[in-house]
Amino acid sequence: MAIGSGKMPVLQAIDGLRLGVVSAGIKTSGRKDLVIFEFVAQASLAAVFTRNAFCAAPVQVAKRHLQTGTRPRYLLINTGNANAGTGQQGIEDAIALCAVLSDVGDVDIEAVLPFSTGVIGEHLPVQKISTAIPAAVKNLRADGWTDAAEGIMTTDTRPKGASCSFEFEGETITITGIAKGAGMIKPNMATMLAYIATDAKISQVLLQSMFAEIVDRSFNRITVDGDTSTNDACILIATGAAGNQEIKTESDPLYLQLAESIETVCLELAQGLVKDAEGASKFVAVTVDGGITEQECLQVAYTIAESPLVKTALFASDPNWGRVLAAIGRAGLKDLEVDLVELYIGKVLIAEKGQRAASYTEQQGQQAMGGAEIDINVGLNRGQCKATVWTSDLSHEYVRINAEYRT
Amino acid sequence: MAIGSGKMPVLQAIDGLRLGVVSAGIKTSGRKDLVIFEFVAQASLAAVFTRNAFCAAPVQVAKRHLQTGTRPRYLLINTGNANAGTGQQGIEDAIALCAVLSDVGDVDIEAVLPFSTGVIGEHLPVQKISTAIPAAVKNLRADGWTDAAEGIMTTDTRPKGASCSFEFEGETITITGIAKGAGMIKPNMATMLAYIATDAKISQVLLQSMFAEIVDRSFNRITVDGDTSTNDACILIATGAAGNQEIKTESDPLYLQLAESIETVCLELAQGLVKDAEGASKFVAVTVDGGITEQECLQVAYTIAESPLVKTALFASDPNWGRVLAAIGRAGLKDLEVDLVELYIGKVLIAEKGQRAASYTEQQGQQAMGGAEIDINVGLNRGQCKATVWTSDLSHEYVRINAEYRT
Repeated sequence: MAIGSGKMPVLQAIDGLRLGVVSAGIKTSGRKDLVIFEFVAQASLAAVFTRNAFCAAPVQVAKRHLQTGTRPRYLLINTGNANAGTGQQGIEDAIALCAVLSDVGDVDIEAVLPFSTGVIGEHLPVQKISTAIPAAVKNLRADGWTDAAEGIMTTDTRPKGASCSFEFEGETITITGIAKGAGMIKPNMATMLAYIATDAKISQVLLQSMFAEIVDRSFNRITVDGDTSTNDACILIATGAAGNQEIKTESDPLYLQLAESIETVCLELAQGLVKDAEGASKFVAVTVDGGITEQECLQVAYTIAESPLVKTALFASDPNWGRVLAAIGRAGLKDLEVDLVELYIGKVLIAEKGQRAASYTEQQGQQAMGGAEIDINVGLNRGQCKATVWTSDLSHEYVRINAEYRT
Repeated sequence: MAIGSGKMPVLQAIDGLRLGVVSAGIKTSGRKDLVIFEFVAQASLAAVFTRNAFCAAPVQVAKRHLQTGTRPRYLLINTGNANAGTGQQGIEDAIALCAVLSDVGDVDIEAVLPFSTGVIGEHLPVQKISTAIPAAVKNLRADGWTDAAEGIMTTDTRPKGASCSFEFEGETITITGIAKGAGMIKPNMATMLAYIATDAKISQVLLQSMFAEIVDRSFNRITVDGDTSTNDACILIATGAAGNQEIKTESDPLYLQLAESIETVCLELAQGLVKDAEGASKFVAVTVDGGITEQECLQVAYTIAESPLVKTALFASDPNWGRVLAAIGRAGLKDLEVDLVELYIGKVLIAEKGQRAASYTEQQGQQAMGGAEIDINVGLNRGQCKATVWTSDLSHEYVRINAEYRT
């Protein structure tokens, strides 16, 4: 039921970074399930992890390794098993596998960051993964991105990747990324993972603050079911191989251009996740403008995007404006003047002054809701701020997938 | 798909209160759709309304009438049309109908409180309701409770009522209530309504504070889809006909006994709503104890109860503890020690120390999840507080009802 063609673009190689992909036999299907990223010693790395208090063992270990200040050199990613809900044994397993890769790659163990995605509550098949690591390292190639996009999939129906480049003072800067996760989150199959890399040279501190902002406006603006996984992680690597002078401040003329291009790649990946969300038949952008703060716009947008009643109406292509107004009304905004609120589906004004717009006809509404991509636009008319979140509908298929997943 | 037999108990009459029920033809089915409550001038009345900013016209009018300080004498309730999303016209319609009843009953217009439930965004059939009001008044009977329970139904599959009485110093105090609403809320068919009455004599101020607390522990602890209606209202009437000395303070020995009995009736009604929730196949009590505050227990309980992933697992009778742990982890509790958290389904310990309990077997879990009524118990082990919320599962039927409602 994925939306759109989902055709994979050409994923350009990033100088200074190679990817190795193999099947370690974690998945019984024999599909690729182990991915290694290797990058140069001078690379900067930024990371954003799940805020779920029950975070998985690899997330805990990756955070600890980053805290040591050791420059990361490898990412070690397995699918088929999330190593979550596995207690102390899970931590030890993740560390043991980092040790194997640090031996093979001849780097400190703290230079390896582990990631896992798949079933919760089962222990990692450590032996299988250990055995496969040397083969994955042998396999490292600069053009391994498409294979890697497939290698990190779980219930995704298709790989997701995005790539772009731009010129700056005679140098070409390239950005490429891949992501997985069908359903913003699935604590059971667990996880959204995204890996983005660029050859730009930029200080680690600046890369981290830039990435945190970008994630907040891209991966953190998508929601399928409001659930947050135990394993979510987004990583941005800047190899510094492009030859630009290191970006050290936001006022550097290259900074803005780089940030915009990375955001474009992240948005494309994030929206790709929603379009492949579990059971999704609609891709929905909910935009709220005229808010006093961006926060209150987000609050309203999320309340709409996560309302089961709105989502089932979207599935039914039903312009059920009463459910959207009710969601706005319960979003908790202080002193909301309901008479000022305007609701559009696409460009069709559906409701204003607390009731159906006089100009509105059911036919217009049906038409606006008919396509696979729907825009819900809310005007609060009380301020200058604006925010958009992306979501999918709630279908029979969503219930089927999530009810029958383990049975 | 309602849970349990839902057999209607005998609803005892309340001295000083009569109910009139007719069909006004608002619903094309010819079912009863107009209910009038009439009560004595000395009665006290407490009211709790929806917090949704888009509250319906009758809610706005009822609030205004209460604010005048005029003692209410009549409730005027129609189903089939929510008079919500109807703008200024909706307000005028509600007032016009109050005027008709105030004429027939010879009371001030402010002594009439209007309530509506049904489709959103359509104007009330004022003429039909006006015409039917005298017949409903003519029909007033002390034993009209069961008819009234049917008269306020919308998509409910069965009427809900509860009744109890107790002795106090030789006097019998009786409490009877009815409620409607299938789905905690359905902004489209709109609304949970509950009407409870007792013959006890109690001051209005005390009745209001008592009722606010009781609603908070009963009707405000049920959630089907996390949505809040535009029309929700709960009303408690104390006719004062029982002959007890008026209760004026909480220290009155009768106060506690009355409050407990009213809470019992409210809990029974509230749980009855969940058991008849749209598409429900499971009735689920989520209890969180060992919290530092009741608020944080509620926060965790609601996050579990409203998680689509937990709800689909409940529908599938799948003891998917990973989803419950993930919901606890994202509930936003500060400094949550995940290793202290214990998760039970019924009496079966499912998870502890961040992983599946060593003693746990899938068979135990399947058994605990097999019945139509399921208890999820979470121990936070960091304080002395406790709270319970009640919910239902998320089934194919829920999606069908809510997707197909208007189509």
